[in-house]
Amino acid sequence: MTRLFNDPNDFVSDMSRGFALASSRWVRAVNGGVVRSTAAVEPTVSLVVGGGSGHFPAFSGLVGPGLAHGTAMGNVFASPSTKQIMSVARACDQGRGVLFSYGNYAGDVLNFDQAQEQLRAEGIDARTVVVTDDIFSAPSGEIEKRRGIAGDLVVFKVAGAAAEAGLDIAEVERLASSANDHTRSIGVAFSGCTLPGADEPLFTVPDGQMAIGLGIHGEPGIDEVPLPSAIQLAELLVSRLLAEAPDQSKRVVPILNGLGTVKYEELYLLYGLIDPLLRTAGYELVDPEVGEFCTSFDMAGLSLTLLWLDDELEPLWNAPCSSAAFTRGELGTAHVPTGLAGQELPQEQVNTAAPAAASAASQQLGREASAAFTRIAAVLDDAAGELGRLDSVAGDGDHGIGMQRGSKAAARAAADATAAGHGAEAVLASAGEAWADVGGGTSGAIWGRIIGTLAAGFAGDSRPTPTSMAAAIDAAVDKVRMFGGVEVGEKTLLDALVPFATEFSRTVSSSGDDSSPLVLARATTCAAHAATQAAQSTADLVAMRGRARSHGDRSVGTPDPGAISLAMIASAIAEQFTSDTPLPTPTERKAARS
Amino acid sequence: MTRLFNDPNDFVSDMSRGFALASSRWVRAVNGGVVRSTAAVEPTVSLVVGGGSGHFPAFSGLVGPGLAHGTAMGNVFASPSTKQIMSVARACDQGRGVLFSYGNYAGDVLNFDQAQEQLRAEGIDARTVVVTDDIFSAPSGEIEKRRGIAGDLVVFKVAGAAAEAGLDIAEVERLASSANDHTRSIGVAFSGCTLPGADEPLFTVPDGQMAIGLGIHGEPGIDEVPLPSAIQLAELLVSRLLAEAPDQSKRVVPILNGLGTVKYEELYLLYGLIDPLLRTAGYELVDPEVGEFCTSFDMAGLSLTLLWLDDELEPLWNAPCSSAAFTRGELGTAHVPTGLAGQELPQEQVNTAAPAAASAASQQLGREASAAFTRIAAVLDDAAGELGRLDSVAGDGDHGIGMQRGSKAAARAAADATAAGHGAEAVLASAGEAWADVGGGTSGAIWGRIIGTLAAGFAGDSRPTPTSMAAAIDAAVDKVRMFGGVEVGEKTLLDALVPFATEFSRTVSSSGDDSSPLVLARATTCAAHAATQAAQSTADLVAMRGRARSHGDRSVGTPDPGAISLAMIASAIAEQFTSDTPLPTPTERKAARS
Repeated sequence: MTRLFNDPNDFVSDMSRGFALASSRWVRAVNGGVVRSTAAVEPTVSLVVGGGSGHFPAFSGLVGPGLAHGTAMGNVFASPSTKQIMSVARACDQGRGVLFSYGNYAGDVLNFDQAQEQLRAEGIDARTVVVTDDIFSAPSGEIEKRRGIAGDLVVFKVAGAAAEAGLDIAEVERLASSANDHTRSIGVAFSGCTLPGADEPLFTVPDGQMAIGLGIHGEPGIDEVPLPSAIQLAELLVSRLLAEAPDQSKRVVPILNGLGTVKYEELYLLYGLIDPLLRTAGYELVDPEVGEFCTSFDMAGLSLTLLWLDDELEPLWNAPCSSAAFTRGELGTAHVPTGLAGQELPQEQVNTAAPAAASAASQQLGREASAAFTRIAAVLDDAAGELGRLDSVAGDGDHGIGMQRGSKAAARAAADATAAGHGAEAVLASAGEAWADVGGGTSGAIWGRIIGTLAAGFAGDSRPTPTSMAAAIDAAVDKVRMFGGVEVGEKTLLDALVPFATEFSRTVSSSGDDSSPLVLARATTCAAHAATQAAQSTADLVAMRGRARSHGDRSVGTPDPGAISLAMIASAIAEQFTSDTPLPTPTERKAARS
Repeated sequence: MTRLFNDPNDFVSDMSRGFALASSRWVRAVNGGVVRSTAAVEPTVSLVVGGGSGHFPAFSGLVGPGLAHGTAMGNVFASPSTKQIMSVARACDQGRGVLFSYGNYAGDVLNFDQAQEQLRAEGIDARTVVVTDDIFSAPSGEIEKRRGIAGDLVVFKVAGAAAEAGLDIAEVERLASSANDHTRSIGVAFSGCTLPGADEPLFTVPDGQMAIGLGIHGEPGIDEVPLPSAIQLAELLVSRLLAEAPDQSKRVVPILNGLGTVKYEELYLLYGLIDPLLRTAGYELVDPEVGEFCTSFDMAGLSLTLLWLDDELEPLWNAPCSSAAFTRGELGTAHVPTGLAGQELPQEQVNTAAPAAASAASQQLGREASAAFTRIAAVLDDAAGELGRLDSVAGDGDHGIGMQRGSKAAARAAADATAAGHGAEAVLASAGEAWADVGGGTSGAIWGRIIGTLAAGFAGDSRPTPTSMAAAIDAAVDKVRMFGGVEVGEKTLLDALVPFATEFSRTVSSSGDDSSPLVLARATTCAAHAATQAAQSTADLVAMRGRARSHGDRSVGTPDPGAISLAMIASAIAEQFTSDTPLPTPTERKAARS
């Protein structure tokens, strides 16, 4: 969806003006496009590229030292006119010939060919290398009919480096042509793109489907398949490209290109799956590129390009260059690779310490705590969506996910510690650490502190009394107050935690018999009830802390998600202490939800 | 909409693995994030940044020489845990102290502060500068409560350059803090973002509305206003930031940051409006940045940041750096600015040649031709949407826009030439040139050739006979055949043009009286009818040319848009020769359409 324009008819000229203003380090505007704002000391062959707009950084973002000398820019998805191309070529010409390079589309071919004819008539040695990397646009027997997509970058980069090296036009043309011969791409899309001022996208992809073999102009795909998982997509892209390997070279440059609205995180995730597939196939990977190099406006899609390197192409691909959108250079002599690049991957840390000698009573209590964490994780797993919705009213909506992740990690850590024979204190301590580490964010940090503080109340070999547990809970309240820097009434989890602690103490001290197991059951039940009531009442408060602060007014009428999740945890604990009912299995919980 | 993942719970770890594999020139993975894969020769202060994922290139894309030493990466929109931060900080520490820098969010503050405490306990000099650039997140009296958004880049860049320069930690801290003090940002959004695995966006912005003051975590905006035009938006952003100018400096760096799915073309268009507003306000602009520096997943929105430079900050901002996502360097001594940077803007070329001496008859014919172009432009303006839809079935959907632009430019050029007293040949020639230049693409190039060829038939002072016009039309057919390299039956405009020419000739030769004006009216009417019939019949053909080629089968059942638009033009000409009805005004045409 394109939103930012004044008159949609002026979109391209308005955009070009802004680009030239923002990028004066590299370009200046001329009629029909942009040319370099810098000059090499010695004249070189001039590389003039171009095509329609809507593909940024192709084509104007690729003008600068070591890359193109100029770009003719047409309207959105439309070839530049012959006159535009002539204007740019004349501004670039340094007397050593002009090489045109662009993707293979009828309109571009018509207009660039006509410009080439006119330049030749003026005595300028003009030549052309069209880019034909899209393997899906014609069979391998008709490569000359294929379209150009992200392979543009490869051919321009090689041609620009060859020109920069001072080679003559015949040699620059030969090398650009070789780069095209060694490059193959394949593209997929999840949605179409919408032109400035248009109400509807050029095409749509049905929900749950993916188009294969689409171009970069909003053309629909050649085939549609059900939306694959990321690994299935990686396998599709790699297998199709390797089946088209142009030669025996086992050194390739992978270029994973976003077409518009597939974000970097998704591209990197996919790259992490493509990389091992290529290595398994026996390829050595040279400086991969992941980003946006040839887009199709706001289309959701991507393409994978492979450049098969040889001894000629590799130094040209690696040569330094500088442009608004693509820069390659040296790191500088002051920095040396440390030799551990990219291979050391994060691993889950496993606590391998030998268990402390724990009494049977402490181990039994640890098992009960572990069961409580399992119950808590199940409750928060069910509630994750609802907590996220509450949080999105005035926060960032991640509370549900954070609590889900944290509690799941805590339950696993508690189970592991229990299985290793640890006592209650160690079980709670490792659960708290795991919650903080995996849950992350504010909630992870605070719950890590709460559980870590409670753990101290379970030290020793004997079962803590309800009175000592009340003291541990009070200590946790103090810790949250201090660590979080919050007070009651600021619409945080403290507004449910304080009533919980107060009610727990009150029930214990009024019970008389401190040794009965019923006291603990009664105290947690009453405290959970108080916490739930208090959490609901936070709907009346104005948020004053954290991300919710700036949306305080908006939060009135919605309870605080942190207080609600605390109440849920309190209720789960109370259930654990009062019920003999076994926990439902994940499948049963799923069935109950639907 | 996030589509590419396997298990949404593994999104961040899967993405991090791919990032480290793709970016081994700059980073290696450690538990909790990434650190540089290179080492400086002399130890420096270590800059450790971080925050939630979903903001790429913040934060992992900013690790490398001259920038950060390491990044702790949390889950999507969630702070990294204390343990993650500690792991990254330990991997970065070179014995000269660790500076933490990150956006001011509660979860990040909790976890980084705890890590800082632990590092200090280990004897490491750990310090912190939090980024607070978002002017909408708290009033100017409470700057320390503001959130950090794209200002992160400024603070990290200055701190990284100060560390790179070998300064001690107190000085690096002071300069980073000064960078934060001199930086202000404001953000707007048009739609919310959707987390991996979620069914719905975190928030929505109503159609036709824009949220102001949103953050980078999918938080809703603080205010909502009707969607402004691009110039209104530029004025809003600039006026709000200048009202918050932190000092008297008149040198600023503007950073226009896309939050996810606002594309480069739109950002550059907006920058072209922001730039003059700042200059008018008396500011000198230093190397603007336009791109994606701190995103919010797939949120449609943007922010404008201004850094007010002083003598200390400017060299640090400009110092070279290299990272996966942000690189600044020298162009190399072999390239010198040519001194015309960014100022020479494209202009409409106006034909200022003195009119050739044209006979009254030729001038009269020129006026008639001009009227015909006006009629053609009106018809194609009405039909642009329908032609675009036809073209999107197997092509790229730009045929309607291209014909609309081209015919409008031709009509204007013809009117200008007529007003300047030119004869028919010159009127047609300038119309053809304008059509090719402004229409662009395949259709512009071909219609430019058709009209240019017809122009030759209108040479001389006397009115051409229908017989000579038939010859001119035949010449145009030959030109299209040769220039476009097409034959009848390939589903192009030739399939309507040839029947038009044939029927025109047949009618003229069977009419007997070559001098009657009725012959021309009859011949164009019959020829237009034949062209219309033939254009409709192209629905049965399989497309074999241009972009439609690869979607040939899909095109069956839909007529060729180029043949249809030719038939429309033919009908418009026939109407011009047969009707005394004046053309409807644009308002009347609009009313008739709705």
